[in-house]
Amino acid sequence: MKLSTLYEQILLKRSFLCIGLDTDADKIPVHLLDPAEPLFTFNKAIIDATAAYAVAYKPNLAFYEAAGASGWLQLMKTVAYIRQHYPEMFIIADAKRGDIGNTSKLYAEAFFKNMDVDAVTLSPYMGRDTVEPFLHYEGKWAILLALTSNPSAADFELTEEAGTGRKLYEKVIATSMQWGTPDNLMYVVGATQASMLESIRKIIPDHFLLIPGIGEQGGSLEEVAKYGMNKHCGLLVNSSRAIIFADNSERFAEAAGREAYALQQQMEQLL
Amino acid sequence: MKLSTLYEQILLKRSFLCIGLDTDADKIPVHLLDPAEPLFTFNKAIIDATAAYAVAYKPNLAFYEAAGASGWLQLMKTVAYIRQHYPEMFIIADAKRGDIGNTSKLYAEAFFKNMDVDAVTLSPYMGRDTVEPFLHYEGKWAILLALTSNPSAADFELTEEAGTGRKLYEKVIATSMQWGTPDNLMYVVGATQASMLESIRKIIPDHFLLIPGIGEQGGSLEEVAKYGMNKHCGLLVNSSRAIIFADNSERFAEAAGREAYALQQQMEQLL
Repeated sequence: MKLSTLYEQILLKRSFLCIGLDTDADKIPVHLLDPAEPLFTFNKAIIDATAAYAVAYKPNLAFYEAAGASGWLQLMKTVAYIRQHYPEMFIIADAKRGDIGNTSKLYAEAFFKNMDVDAVTLSPYMGRDTVEPFLHYEGKWAILLALTSNPSAADFELTEEAGTGRKLYEKVIATSMQWGTPDNLMYVVGATQASMLESIRKIIPDHFLLIPGIGEQGGSLEEVAKYGMNKHCGLLVNSSRAIIFADNSERFAEAAGREAYALQQQMEQLL
Repeated sequence: MKLSTLYEQILLKRSFLCIGLDTDADKIPVHLLDPAEPLFTFNKAIIDATAAYAVAYKPNLAFYEAAGASGWLQLMKTVAYIRQHYPEMFIIADAKRGDIGNTSKLYAEAFFKNMDVDAVTLSPYMGRDTVEPFLHYEGKWAILLALTSNPSAADFELTEEAGTGRKLYEKVIATSMQWGTPDNLMYVVGATQASMLESIRKIIPDHFLLIPGIGEQGGSLEEVAKYGMNKHCGLLVNSSRAIIFADNSERFAEAAGREAYALQQQMEQLL
C-alpha cells in the first residue's frame, strides 16, 4: 500500500486506529476453544466487528507461534480473510525480526510473498543489512523499533552517544532514514513516551509512526496526536488487549466493536 | 541442558561445533524437492551424517517460516528427530526474537514448551523485559545478540556510550549478565571480530559464546579459540552453509559429514 492510499483511508474512516490481534489462546472466550481453529475464529469475529473503525490490523507473531504449525496456518488465514473482505486494510506482521542479509531476505519472502502483509516490524540492532531486503518490495514497508513502550526500553534505547549526545533511538532513526523513504519505512514509538515525539518529529517530519502502548500500557491519545501528527496524519495508533479482550462473554465481538468505535470517535476529533 | 552437561559433551566429542540448519529450500539438492517435506528430509540426512562431530544444531527460523505452516511443522519434526536420535545434542532456535514481557512469555512457551529446544537467540534492543521470560525455564538458555558478524554490525552495536566510553555491545553484555547466570545466558559474538573477544572475556569470563561467521563469513577458528576459550571451553562455533551446502549432488550428506569432520579435527587440536 502506498502512503497516499493509507492517508486516504485515514480520511475516509476518520480514524488512525490499528488493532493488535494479540490473540492469546488462554484469553479468548471459552466457547471458542472447541473448534480446530480458535485463533482464526476469534479473529474473524473481532475483525468483522471492528473493521469500520480501523485502518490497520497488527497480528503479533508470538501468539500464533505459540500454537505451532496450526497457529501459523491460522495467521495466514487471518491475513487472507482481511485481504478478501477488507482489501483497503493495512496489515502489519508484528514480528520484530532482524537477521543477517541472506536470512532477512528469507524473512521478507515469508511475510511479503507468502503471507502478503503490508509491513513487518523489525529490530534495528544488527544494522542496515537486516532491514534492506524488506525495502525492495514495491508498496511494502519495514517498521523499525525506535523507542518502545515497555518498562525496560531505557536499558539500551536511551543510551547516550559520545560526541553527539543523541540517544540510541535517535541514532537509529537518523541513520536508518537514509536507507529508505517515508514511502517504505515507519518507526515504532511508544505512546508512554509522548513528550519525546516532538523531538522525533524534528528528525523525521514525514514518516509514519506506529504507536503502541495506548490503553493497557497507559499512553494518552491526545498527547500522541499533539506531538506526533503531521500533514498526512503520520500516525497509526495501536490498541490490542483493551479492544480484543474488552469482554470475555459470548458477546466479546460486540464489546470489541464498542471499544474500537470509542477510539475512532476520539480520533475523529483529533484529525 | 546444564552447562556442565554441555561441557561433558564437548570433551566427549572433542568438538565445540554447532551446525546451522539454514535449510534454504532453493539450495537443497533437486532430488529432495519432490517429497512433501523437503526441509525435514534434507535435515535428517545432514544430521545423521554430522552428529558424531557436533555438539549443537541451530536451525534458523527464517528458512522454515519461508515455507509457511509446513515449514514450521518440518522444524518441529527436525527438533523431535534430534531429540529422539541424539538426545545429548544442544538445540538452538536461531529466532532473534525480542518483544515486550507478555509477548516474550508466549515466545518462550512456543520454543521451550512446544518445541523443546534448549536455547533461543534474542535481540537485546528492548531491554530486560524481553529476555527475562526465557530465563525462568530450568535447563533452558537465552542467547543474546552482542556483537554480530554481518557487515552492518557497526551501525549501532559499536556506538560509544557517553561517559563510560564503552561500546553498545559491551553495555549489552555488562547489563544483561546481571539478569541471568552463566548457566542460562550465552552471547552471540561474531567470529569476524575475533580480536574483540579478548575484551569481552574480561567482562564475562565464564559465559558460553555462540560464534557464527566461521566459513562463509570469513572468521578464523584459531583466533576465536585463542581469544575466546575459557576453562569450560565456553565456545560453540557455528558453521552453516559451508557444511550443509558443501555439495549439491545426491551425495550432499556425505560431503557435509566430511566438512564437519574436518572442523572437529581442528577443534580437537585447539581443545
